Amino acid sequence: MNKLKVAIIQMIVVKDKMKNIEKASDFIKNVIKEDIDIAVLPEMFLCPYDQSNFPIYAEKEGEISYLLLSEIAKQNNIYLVAGSVPEKDDDGNIFNTSYVFDPNGIKIAKHRKVHLFDIDIENGQYFKESDTLDAGNEVTVFDTKFGKIGLCICYDFRFPELSRLMVDKGAKAIIVPAAFNMTTGPAHWELLFRCRAVDNQVYTIGCASARDNSATYISYGNSIAVSPFGEVLVHMNEKEGYSISSLDFDYVDKVRGELPLIAHRRLDIY
Amino acid sequence: MNKLKVAIIQMIVVKDKMKNIEKASDFIKNVIKEDIDIAVLPEMFLCPYDQSNFPIYAEKEGEISYLLLSEIAKQNNIYLVAGSVPEKDDDGNIFNTSYVFDPNGIKIAKHRKVHLFDIDIENGQYFKESDTLDAGNEVTVFDTKFGKIGLCICYDFRFPELSRLMVDKGAKAIIVPAAFNMTTGPAHWELLFRCRAVDNQVYTIGCASARDNSATYISYGNSIAVSPFGEVLVHMNEKEGYSISSLDFDYVDKVRGELPLIAHRRLDIY
Repeated sequence: MNKLKVAIIQMIVVKDKMKNIEKASDFIKNVIKEDIDIAVLPEMFLCPYDQSNFPIYAEKEGEISYLLLSEIAKQNNIYLVAGSVPEKDDDGNIFNTSYVFDPNGIKIAKHRKVHLFDIDIENGQYFKESDTLDAGNEVTVFDTKFGKIGLCICYDFRFPELSRLMVDKGAKAIIVPAAFNMTTGPAHWELLFRCRAVDNQVYTIGCASARDNSATYISYGNSIAVSPFGEVLVHMNEKEGYSISSLDFDYVDKVRGELPLIAHRRLDIY
Repeated sequence: MNKLKVAIIQMIVVKDKMKNIEKASDFIKNVIKEDIDIAVLPEMFLCPYDQSNFPIYAEKEGEISYLLLSEIAKQNNIYLVAGSVPEKDDDGNIFNTSYVFDPNGIKIAKHRKVHLFDIDIENGQYFKESDTLDAGNEVTVFDTKFGKIGLCICYDFRFPELSRLMVDKGAKAIIVPAAFNMTTGPAHWELLFRCRAVDNQVYTIGCASARDNSATYISYGNSIAVSPFGEVLVHMNEKEGYSISSLDFDYVDKVRGELPLIAHRRLDIY
Protein backbone atom coordinates (compact mmCIF):
# COMPACT_ATOMS: atom_id res chain seq x y z
CA MET A 1 0.00 0.00 0.00
CA ASN A 2 2.79 2.45 -0.78
CA LYS A 3 1.63 3.45 -4.25
CA LEU A 4 -1.25 5.83 -4.82
CA LYS A 5 -2.85 7.88 -7.58
CA VAL A 6 -3.72 11.49 -6.97
CA ALA A 7 -6.13 13.49 -9.12
CA ILE A 8 -5.76 17.26 -9.25
CA ILE A 9 -9.05 18.97 -10.19
CA GLN A 10 -8.17 22.36 -11.68
CA MET A 11 -11.63 23.86 -11.94
CA ILE A 12 -12.93 27.32 -12.77
CA VAL A 13 -14.66 28.89 -9.78
CA VAL A 14 -18.03 30.57 -10.46
CA LYS A 15 -20.23 32.73 -8.24
CA ASP A 16 -22.88 30.08 -7.58
CA LYS A 17 -21.65 27.96 -4.67
CA MET A 18 -23.78 24.93 -5.52
CA LYS A 19 -22.69 25.00 -9.16
CA ASN A 20 -19.07 24.76 -7.91
CA ILE A 21 -19.91 21.74 -5.77
CA GLU A 22 -21.72 20.10 -8.68
CA LYS A 23 -18.74 20.68 -10.93
CA ALA A 24 -16.33 19.20 -8.40
CA SER A 25 -18.63 16.22 -8.05
CA ASP A 26 -18.88 15.73 -11.81
CA PHE A 27 -15.09 15.91 -12.24
CA ILE A 28 -14.57 13.34 -9.51
CA LYS A 29 -17.21 10.94 -10.86
CA ASN A 30 -15.30 11.09 -14.11
CA VAL A 31 -11.74 10.67 -12.76
CA ILE A 32 -12.54 7.69 -10.50
CA LYS A 33 -12.72 5.66 -13.72
CA GLU A 34 -8.94 5.98 -13.68
CA ASP A 35 -8.73 4.26 -10.32
CA ILE A 36 -7.59 7.22 -8.26
CA ASP A 37 -7.09 7.15 -4.49
CA ILE A 38 -7.11 10.85 -3.62
CA ALA A 39 -8.77 13.83 -5.28
CA VAL A 40 -7.62 17.37 -4.56
CA LEU A 41 -9.66 20.54 -5.15
CA PRO A 42 -8.33 24.14 -5.38
CA GLU A 43 -8.17 26.87 -2.75
CA MET A 44 -11.50 28.69 -2.33
CA PHE A 45 -13.19 26.53 -4.97
CA LEU A 46 -16.68 27.44 -3.74
CA CYS A 47 -16.13 31.17 -3.55
CA PRO A 48 -14.47 33.57 -6.00
CA TYR A 49 -11.23 34.62 -4.30
CA ASP A 50 -12.05 38.14 -3.09
CA GLN A 51 -12.02 39.53 0.44
CA SER A 52 -15.62 40.73 0.18
CA ASN A 53 -16.88 37.22 -0.66
CA PHE A 54 -15.39 35.37 2.29
CA PRO A 55 -17.96 36.50 4.92
CA ILE A 56 -20.85 35.98 2.50
CA TYR A 57 -19.88 32.46 1.44
CA ALA A 58 -18.68 31.30 4.88
CA GLU A 59 -20.37 28.32 6.55
CA LYS A 60 -19.76 26.55 9.83
CA GLU A 61 -18.23 23.09 9.89
CA GLY A 62 -21.01 20.55 9.40
CA GLU A 63 -23.27 22.77 7.31
CA ILE A 64 -24.43 22.09 3.77
CA SER A 65 -21.20 22.40 1.76
CA TYR A 66 -19.33 20.29 4.30
CA LEU A 67 -22.00 17.58 4.16
CA LEU A 68 -21.99 17.51 0.37
CA LEU A 69 -18.21 17.23 0.24
CA SER A 70 -18.24 14.39 2.75
CA GLU A 71 -20.83 12.67 0.57
CA ILE A 72 -18.65 13.07 -2.55
CA ALA A 73 -15.78 11.31 -0.78
CA LYS A 74 -18.05 8.48 0.39
CA GLN A 75 -19.94 7.96 -2.87
CA ASN A 76 -16.71 7.76 -4.84
CA ASN A 77 -14.81 5.80 -2.18
CA ILE A 78 -11.79 8.12 -2.23
CA TYR A 79 -9.87 10.42 0.06
CA LEU A 80 -10.97 13.97 -0.72
CA VAL A 81 -8.75 16.96 0.04
CA ALA A 82 -11.60 19.42 -0.34
CA GLY A 83 -9.57 22.42 -1.47
CA SER A 84 -10.45 25.24 0.83
CA VAL A 85 -13.60 27.08 1.80
CA PRO A 86 -14.39 30.08 4.00
CA GLU A 87 -15.27 28.64 7.42
CA LYS A 88 -16.89 30.62 10.21
CA ASP A 89 -16.75 29.70 13.85
CA ASP A 90 -19.26 30.39 16.64
CA ASP A 91 -17.59 33.73 17.39
CA GLY A 92 -17.97 34.99 13.82
CA ASN A 93 -14.27 34.55 12.95
CA ILE A 94 -13.66 33.43 9.37
CA PHE A 95 -10.90 31.07 8.29
CA ASN A 96 -9.54 29.79 4.99
CA THR A 97 -10.09 26.11 5.76
CA SER A 98 -9.32 22.80 4.07
CA TYR A 99 -11.29 19.71 5.13
CA VAL A 100 -10.06 16.20 4.34
CA PHE A 101 -12.51 13.28 4.16
CA ASP A 102 -11.67 9.58 4.04
CA PRO A 103 -13.38 7.07 1.67
CA ASN A 104 -16.15 6.67 4.26
CA GLY A 105 -16.84 10.38 4.21
CA ILE A 106 -15.37 10.84 7.70
CA LYS A 107 -13.43 14.06 8.29
CA ILE A 108 -9.83 13.07 9.10
CA ALA A 109 -8.19 16.50 8.99
CA LYS A 110 -8.93 20.19 8.90
CA HIS A 111 -6.33 22.84 8.15
CA ARG A 112 -6.94 26.52 8.72
CA LYS A 113 -4.48 28.64 6.71
CA VAL A 114 -1.88 29.82 9.19
CA HIS A 115 -0.14 32.50 7.07
CA LEU A 116 -2.52 35.16 5.77
CA PHE A 117 -1.71 36.57 2.35
CA ASP A 118 -1.00 40.30 2.51
CA ILE A 119 0.97 41.49 -0.50
CA ASP A 120 1.51 44.81 -2.32
CA ILE A 121 3.92 44.57 -5.26
CA GLU A 122 4.69 47.72 -7.28
CA ASN A 123 2.96 47.37 -10.67
CA GLY A 124 1.92 43.88 -9.58
CA GLN A 125 -0.43 42.09 -7.24
CA TYR A 126 -2.23 43.63 -4.21
CA PHE A 127 -4.28 41.54 -1.78
CA LYS A 128 -4.94 41.69 1.95
CA GLU A 129 -6.49 38.51 3.32
CA SER A 130 -6.14 39.70 6.90
CA ASP A 131 -8.86 42.31 6.28
CA THR A 132 -11.52 39.62 6.49
CA LEU A 133 -9.85 36.37 7.57
CA ASP A 134 -8.40 34.99 10.79
CA ALA A 135 -5.40 32.68 10.90
CA GLY A 136 -5.21 29.08 12.07
CA ASN A 137 -2.57 27.91 14.51
CA GLU A 138 -1.93 24.27 13.66
CA VAL A 139 0.49 22.24 11.57
CA THR A 140 -1.62 19.66 9.71
CA VAL A 141 -0.61 16.11 8.79
CA PHE A 142 -3.16 13.36 8.21
CA ASP A 143 -2.80 9.61 8.02
CA THR A 144 -3.98 7.47 5.13
CA LYS A 145 -3.62 3.78 4.36
CA PHE A 146 -0.67 4.79 2.13
CA GLY A 147 1.20 6.88 4.68
CA LYS A 148 1.16 10.37 6.13
CA ILE A 149 0.41 13.49 4.09
CA GLY A 150 0.92 17.12 5.04
CA LEU A 151 -1.59 19.82 4.14
CA CYS A 152 -1.32 23.58 3.90
CA ILE A 153 -2.94 26.34 1.88
CA CYS A 154 -1.23 28.53 -0.75
CA TYR A 155 0.75 31.26 1.06
CA ASP A 156 1.51 28.79 3.88
CA PHE A 157 3.76 27.00 1.40
CA ARG A 158 6.02 30.08 1.14
CA PHE A 159 7.42 29.31 4.58
CA PRO A 160 9.99 26.49 4.64
CA GLU A 161 9.52 26.09 8.38
CA LEU A 162 5.99 24.73 7.93
CA SER A 163 6.95 22.04 5.39
CA ARG A 164 9.79 20.97 7.68
CA LEU A 165 7.40 20.57 10.60
CA MET A 166 5.12 18.40 8.44
CA VAL A 167 8.09 16.19 7.59
CA ASP A 168 8.97 15.91 11.27
CA LYS A 169 5.41 14.65 11.77
CA GLY A 170 5.98 11.97 9.13
CA ALA A 171 4.69 13.52 5.90
CA LYS A 172 5.81 11.82 2.68
CA ALA A 173 3.78 14.16 0.51
CA ILE A 174 2.54 17.72 0.95
CA ILE A 175 -0.74 18.75 -0.67
CA VAL A 176 -1.38 22.44 -1.26
CA PRO A 177 -4.71 23.83 -2.46
CA ALA A 178 -3.59 27.18 -3.81
CA ALA A 179 -4.21 30.13 -6.07
CA PHE A 180 -1.04 31.97 -7.01
CA ASN A 181 -1.60 35.04 -9.17
CA MET A 182 -0.20 36.44 -12.41
CA THR A 183 2.73 38.12 -10.58
CA THR A 184 3.86 35.42 -8.17
CA GLY A 185 2.78 32.46 -10.33
CA PRO A 186 5.18 32.91 -13.23
CA ALA A 187 7.91 34.05 -10.82
CA HIS A 188 7.75 31.43 -8.08
CA TRP A 189 5.08 28.72 -8.39
CA GLU A 190 7.06 25.86 -9.96
CA LEU A 191 10.21 26.91 -8.11
CA LEU A 192 8.57 26.55 -4.70
CA PHE A 193 6.94 23.20 -5.45
CA ARG A 194 10.23 21.82 -6.77
CA CYS A 195 12.39 23.19 -3.99
CA ARG A 196 10.13 22.15 -1.08
CA ALA A 197 10.08 18.67 -2.65
CA VAL A 198 13.88 18.54 -2.93
CA ASP A 199 14.61 20.03 0.50
CA ASN A 200 12.18 17.74 2.27
CA GLN A 201 12.35 14.74 -0.04
CA VAL A 202 8.58 14.55 -0.31
CA TYR A 203 6.08 14.61 -3.15
CA THR A 204 4.48 18.03 -3.51
CA ILE A 205 1.07 18.58 -5.08
CA GLY A 206 -0.25 22.03 -5.92
CA CYS A 207 -3.91 22.30 -6.95
CA ALA A 208 -4.92 25.71 -8.30
CA SER A 209 -8.18 26.95 -9.71
CA ALA A 210 -8.21 27.41 -13.49
CA ARG A 211 -7.56 30.90 -14.84
CA ASP A 212 -10.54 33.22 -15.18
CA ASN A 213 -9.43 36.50 -16.71
CA SER A 214 -12.71 38.15 -15.69
CA ALA A 215 -12.10 37.50 -11.96
CA THR A 216 -10.94 40.26 -9.59
CA TYR A 217 -8.09 37.96 -8.50
CA ILE A 218 -6.73 36.02 -11.48
CA SER A 219 -5.45 32.54 -10.63
CA TYR A 220 -2.25 31.41 -12.36
CA GLY A 221 -3.49 27.83 -12.70
CA ASN A 222 -0.54 25.56 -13.60
CA SER A 223 -1.37 22.85 -11.06
CA ILE A 224 1.67 20.70 -10.46
CA ALA A 225 3.01 17.49 -8.94
CA VAL A 226 6.71 17.02 -8.14
CA SER A 227 8.74 13.99 -7.02
CA PRO A 228 10.98 13.85 -3.90
CA PHE A 229 14.03 14.39 -6.16
CA GLY A 230 12.46 17.46 -7.76
CA GLU A 231 11.24 15.94 -11.02
CA VAL A 232 8.05 17.55 -12.35
CA LEU A 233 5.49 14.73 -12.75
CA VAL A 234 2.62 16.87 -13.93
CA HIS A 235 2.44 20.51 -14.91
CA MET A 236 -0.95 21.64 -16.16
CA ASN A 237 -1.59 24.80 -18.16
CA GLU A 238 -4.07 27.52 -17.13
CA LYS A 239 -7.22 25.83 -18.44
CA GLU A 240 -9.90 23.89 -16.62
CA GLY A 241 -9.20 20.18 -16.45
CA TYR A 242 -7.68 17.46 -14.30
CA SER A 243 -4.46 15.49 -14.09
CA ILE A 244 -3.42 12.27 -12.43
CA SER A 245 -0.06 11.59 -10.75
CA SER A 246 1.29 8.28 -9.50
CA LEU A 247 3.11 8.50 -6.16
CA ASP A 248 5.30 5.82 -4.61
CA PHE A 249 6.14 6.37 -0.95
CA ASP A 250 8.92 3.74 -1.16
CA TYR A 251 10.69 6.16 -3.52
CA VAL A 252 10.63 8.77 -0.75
CA ASP A 253 12.54 6.33 1.46
CA LYS A 254 14.99 5.56 -1.37
CA VAL A 255 15.79 9.25 -2.00
CA ARG A 256 16.18 9.86 1.73
CA GLY A 257 18.55 6.90 1.95
CA GLU A 258 20.80 8.00 -0.92
CA LEU A 259 21.01 11.69 0.02
CA PRO A 260 20.18 11.75 3.74
CA LEU A 261 19.18 15.41 4.08
CA ILE A 262 16.71 14.82 6.88
CA ALA A 263 19.26 12.85 8.90
CA HIS A 264 22.10 15.28 8.13
CA ARG A 265 20.35 18.29 9.66
CA ARG A 266 22.41 19.94 12.40
CA LEU A 267 19.61 20.32 14.89
CA ASP A 268 22.26 21.16 17.51
CA ILE A 269 22.98 24.50 15.82
CA TYR A 270 19.60 25.55 14.37
CA MET B 1 27.00 52.35 -0.02
CA ASN B 2 24.20 49.88 -0.79
CA LYS B 3 25.36 48.89 -4.26
CA LEU B 4 28.24 46.51 -4.83
CA LYS B 5 29.84 44.44 -7.58
CA VAL B 6 30.70 40.82 -6.97
CA ALA B 7 33.11 38.82 -9.11
CA ILE B 8 32.75 35.06 -9.24
CA ILE B 9 36.02 33.34 -10.18
CA GLN B 10 35.14 29.95 -11.68
CA MET B 11 38.63 28.45 -11.93
CA ILE B 12 39.92 24.99 -12.76
CA VAL B 13 41.66 23.42 -9.75
CA VAL B 14 45.02 21.73 -10.42
CA LYS B 15 47.21 19.57 -8.21
CA ASP B 16 49.85 22.22 -7.53
CA LYS B 17 48.62 24.34 -4.64
CA MET B 18 50.76 27.36 -5.48
CA LYS B 19 49.67 27.31 -9.12
CA ASN B 20 46.06 27.55 -7.89
CA ILE B 21 46.89 30.58 -5.74
CA GLU B 22 48.71 32.21 -8.65
CA LYS B 23 45.73 31.63 -10.91
CA ALA B 24 43.31 33.10 -8.36
CA SER B 25 45.63 36.09 -8.03
CA ASP B 26 45.87 36.57 -11.80
CA PHE B 27 42.09 36.39 -12.22
CA ILE B 28 41.54 38.97 -9.50
CA LYS B 29 44.23 41.35 -10.86
CA ASN B 30 42.30 41.22 -14.11
CA VAL B 31 38.74 41.63 -12.76
CA ILE B 32 39.54 44.61 -10.51
CA LYS B 33 39.73 46.63 -13.73
CA GLU B 34 35.94 46.32 -13.68
CA ASP B 35 35.74 48.06 -10.33
CA ILE B 36 34.58 45.10 -8.26
CA ASP B 37 34.08 45.18 -4.50
CA ILE B 38 34.10 41.48 -3.62
CA ALA B 39 35.74 38.49 -5.27
CA VAL B 40 34.60 34.94 -4.56
CA LEU B 41 36.63 31.78 -5.14
CA PRO B 42 35.32 28.18 -5.37
CA GLU B 43 35.13 25.45 -2.76
CA MET B 44 38.46 23.63 -2.32
CA PHE B 45 40.14 25.78 -4.94
CA LEU B 46 43.65 24.88 -3.71
CA CYS B 47 43.13 21.14 -3.52
CA PRO B 48 41.46 18.75 -5.97
CA TYR B 49 38.21 17.69 -4.28
CA ASP B 50 39.03 14.17 -3.09
CA GLN B 51 38.99 12.77 0.46
CA SER B 52 42.58 11.58 0.22
CA ASN B 53 43.85 15.08 -0.61
CA PHE B 54 42.34 16.94 2.33
CA PRO B 55 44.91 15.82 4.97
CA ILE B 56 47.81 16.33 2.54
CA TYR B 57 46.84 19.84 1.49
CA ALA B 58 45.64 21.01 4.92
CA GLU B 59 47.34 23.99 6.60
CA LYS B 60 46.71 25.76 9.87
CA GLU B 61 45.19 29.23 9.92
CA GLY B 62 47.97 31.77 9.45
CA GLU B 63 50.22 29.54 7.35
CA ILE B 64 51.42 30.22 3.81
CA SER B 65 48.18 29.91 1.78
CA TYR B 66 46.31 32.02 4.33
CA LEU B 67 48.98 34.73 4.18
CA LEU B 68 48.99 34.81 0.39
CA LEU B 69 45.19 35.09 0.26
CA SER B 70 45.22 37.93 2.78
CA GLU B 71 47.82 39.64 0.58
CA ILE B 72 45.65 39.25 -2.54
CA ALA B 73 42.76 41.02 -0.77
CA LYS B 74 45.05 43.83 0.40
CA GLN B 75 46.93 44.35 -2.86
CA ASN B 76 43.70 44.57 -4.83
CA ASN B 77 41.81 46.52 -2.18
CA ILE B 78 38.77 44.19 -2.23
CA TYR B 79 36.85 41.90 0.06
CA LEU B 80 37.94 38.36 -0.72
CA VAL B 81 35.73 35.36 0.04
CA ALA B 82 38.57 32.91 -0.33
CA GLY B 83 36.56 29.90 -1.49
CA SER B 84 37.42 27.08 0.84
CA VAL B 85 40.58 25.24 1.82
CA PRO B 86 41.35 22.24 4.02
CA GLU B 87 42.24 23.69 7.44
CA LYS B 88 43.85 21.72 10.25
CA ASP B 89 43.70 22.64 13.91
CA ASP B 90 46.20 21.92 16.70
CA ASP B 91 44.54 18.59 17.44
CA GLY B 92 44.91 17.35 13.86
CA ASN B 93 41.23 17.77 12.99
CA ILE B 94 40.63 18.89 9.41
CA PHE B 95 37.85 21.26 8.32
CA ASN B 96 36.50 22.54 5.01
CA THR B 97 37.05 26.24 5.77
CA SER B 98 36.30 29.53 4.08
CA TYR B 99 38.26 32.63 5.15
CA VAL B 100 37.03 36.14 4.35
CA PHE B 101 39.49 39.06 4.17
CA ASP B 102 38.64 42.75 4.03
CA PRO B 103 40.36 45.25 1.68
CA ASN B 104 43.14 45.66 4.28
CA GLY B 105 43.84 41.94 4.22
CA ILE B 106 42.36 41.50 7.69
CA LYS B 107 40.40 38.28 8.28
CA ILE B 108 36.81 39.28 9.10
CA ALA B 109 35.17 35.84 9.00
CA LYS B 110 35.89 32.16 8.90
CA HIS B 111 33.29 29.50 8.15
CA ARG B 112 33.91 25.83 8.74
CA LYS B 113 31.44 23.71 6.71
CA VAL B 114 28.84 22.51 9.20
CA HIS B 115 27.11 19.84 7.09
CA LEU B 116 29.49 17.19 5.79
CA PHE B 117 28.68 15.77 2.37
CA ASP B 118 27.98 12.04 2.53
CA ILE B 119 26.02 10.84 -0.48
CA ASP B 120 25.47 7.53 -2.29
CA ILE B 121 23.08 7.75 -5.24
CA GLU B 122 22.29 4.60 -7.25
CA ASN B 123 24.04 4.94 -10.63
CA GLY B 124 25.08 8.43 -9.54
CA GLN B 125 27.43 10.24 -7.21
CA TYR B 126 29.22 8.69 -4.19
CA PHE B 127 31.26 10.80 -1.76
CA LYS B 128 31.92 10.64 1.98
CA GLU B 129 33.46 13.83 3.35
CA SER B 130 33.12 12.66 6.93
CA ASP B 131 35.83 10.03 6.31
CA THR B 132 38.50 12.73 6.53
CA LEU B 133 36.81 15.97 7.60
CA ASP B 134 35.37 17.35 10.82
CA ALA B 135 32.37 19.67 10.93
CA GLY B 136 32.18 23.27 12.09
CA ASN B 137 29.53 24.44 14.51
CA GLU B 138 28.88 28.09 13.67
CA VAL B 139 26.46 30.12 11.57
CA THR B 140 28.58 32.70 9.71
CA VAL B 141 27.57 36.24 8.79
CA PHE B 142 30.13 39.00 8.21
CA ASP B 143 29.78 42.74 8.02
CA THR B 144 30.97 44.88 5.11
CA LYS B 145 30.60 48.56 4.34
CA PHE B 146 27.66 47.55 2.11
CA GLY B 147 25.78 45.47 4.67
CA LYS B 148 25.83 41.97 6.13
CA ILE B 149 26.57 38.87 4.10
CA GLY B 150 26.05 35.22 5.04
CA LEU B 151 28.56 32.53 4.15
CA CYS B 152 28.28 28.76 3.90
CA ILE B 153 29.90 26.00 1.88
CA CYS B 154 28.20 23.81 -0.74
CA TYR B 155 26.21 21.08 1.07
CA ASP B 156 25.46 23.56 3.88
CA PHE B 157 23.21 25.32 1.39
CA ARG B 158 20.95 22.26 1.14
CA PHE B 159 19.55 23.05 4.57
CA PRO B 160 16.96 25.86 4.64
CA GLU B 161 17.44 26.27 8.38
CA LEU B 162 20.98 27.62 7.91
CA SER B 163 20.01 30.31 5.40
CA ARG B 164 17.16 31.37 7.66
CA LEU B 165 19.56 31.79 10.58
CA MET B 166 21.84 33.96 8.44
CA VAL B 167 18.88 36.17 7.57
CA ASP B 168 17.99 36.44 11.26
CA LYS B 169 21.55 37.69 11.76
CA GLY B 170 20.99 40.37 9.12
CA ALA B 171 22.29 38.82 5.88
CA LYS B 172 21.17 40.54 2.66
CA ALA B 173 23.21 38.19 0.50
CA ILE B 174 24.42 34.62 0.94
CA ILE B 175 27.70 33.59 -0.67
CA VAL B 176 28.34 29.90 -1.26
CA PRO B 177 31.68 28.50 -2.45
CA ALA B 178 30.56 25.14 -3.79
CA ALA B 179 31.19 22.18 -6.05
CA PHE B 180 28.02 20.35 -7.00
CA ASN B 181 28.57 17.28 -9.17
CA MET B 182 27.17 15.86 -12.41
CA THR B 183 24.26 14.18 -10.57
CA THR B 184 23.13 16.90 -8.16
CA GLY B 185 24.21 19.84 -10.31
CA PRO B 186 21.80 19.39 -13.22
CA ALA B 187 19.06 18.25 -10.82
CA HIS B 188 19.22 20.88 -8.08
CA TRP B 189 21.89 23.61 -8.39
CA GLU B 190 19.92 26.47 -9.96
CA LEU B 191 16.76 25.42 -8.12
CA LEU B 192 18.41 25.78 -4.71
CA PHE B 193 20.02 29.13 -5.45
CA ARG B 194 16.75 30.52 -6.77
CA CYS B 195 14.57 29.14 -4.00
CA ARG B 196 16.83 30.18 -1.10
CA ALA B 197 16.90 33.67 -2.65
CA VAL B 198 13.09 33.80 -2.94
CA ASP B 199 12.36 32.31 0.49
CA ASN B 200 14.79 34.60 2.26
CA GLN B 201 14.62 37.62 -0.06
CA VAL B 202 18.40 37.81 -0.32
CA TYR B 203 20.89 37.74 -3.16
CA THR B 204 22.49 34.30 -3.52
CA ILE B 205 25.91 33.76 -5.08
CA GLY B 206 27.23 30.29 -5.90
CA CYS B 207 30.89 30.02 -6.95
CA ALA B 208 31.90 26.61 -8.29
CA SER B 209 35.16 25.37 -9.70
CA ALA B 210 35.20 24.89 -13.48
CA ARG B 211 34.55 21.40 -14.83
CA ASP B 212 37.54 19.09 -15.17
CA ASN B 213 36.43 15.79 -16.70
CA SER B 214 39.72 14.18 -15.66
CA ALA B 215 39.09 14.81 -11.93
CA THR B 216 37.95 12.04 -9.58
CA TYR B 217 35.08 14.35 -8.50
CA ILE B 218 33.72 16.28 -11.47
CA SER B 219 32.45 19.76 -10.62
CA TYR B 220 29.24 20.89 -12.36
CA GLY B 221 30.47 24.48 -12.68
CA ASN B 222 27.52 26.75 -13.62
CA SER B 223 28.36 29.47 -11.07
CA ILE B 224 25.31 31.61 -10.45
CA ALA B 225 23.96 34.83 -8.95
CA VAL B 226 20.27 35.31 -8.15
CA SER B 227 18.24 38.35 -7.02
CA PRO B 228 15.99 38.49 -3.92
CA PHE B 229 12.94 37.95 -6.18
CA GLY B 230 14.52 34.87 -7.79
CA GLU B 231 15.73 36.39 -11.05
CA VAL B 232 18.93 34.78 -12.36
CA LEU B 233 21.48 37.59 -12.76
CA VAL B 234 24.37 35.44 -13.94
CA HIS B 235 24.53 31.79 -14.91
CA MET B 236 27.93 30.65 -16.17
CA ASN B 237 28.57 27.51 -18.17
CA GLU B 238 31.05 24.79 -17.14
CA LYS B 239 34.21 26.47 -18.43
CA GLU B 240 36.90 28.40 -16.62
CA GLY B 241 36.19 32.13 -16.44
CA TYR B 242 34.66 34.85 -14.31
CA SER B 243 31.44 36.82 -14.09
CA ILE B 244 30.40 40.04 -12.43
CA SER B 245 27.05 40.74 -10.76
CA SER B 246 25.68 44.06 -9.51
CA LEU B 247 23.89 43.83 -6.17
CA ASP B 248 21.68 46.51 -4.62
CA PHE B 249 20.85 45.99 -0.97
CA ASP B 250 18.06 48.60 -1.18
CA TYR B 251 16.30 46.19 -3.55
CA VAL B 252 16.35 43.58 -0.77
CA ASP B 253 14.44 46.02 1.44
CA LYS B 254 12.00 46.79 -1.39
CA VAL B 255 11.20 43.11 -2.01
CA ARG B 256 10.79 42.48 1.72
CA GLY B 257 8.43 45.45 1.92
CA GLU B 258 6.18 44.35 -0.95
CA LEU B 259 5.96 40.66 -0.01
CA PRO B 260 6.80 40.60 3.72
CA LEU B 261 7.80 36.94 4.06
CA ILE B 262 10.25 37.53 6.87
CA ALA B 263 7.71 39.51 8.88
CA HIS B 264 4.87 37.06 8.11
CA ARG B 265 6.60 34.06 9.64
CA ARG B 266 4.53 32.40 12.38
CA LEU B 267 7.34 32.02 14.88
CA ASP B 268 4.69 31.19 17.50
CA ILE B 269 3.96 27.86 15.83
CA TYR B 270 7.34 26.82 14.38
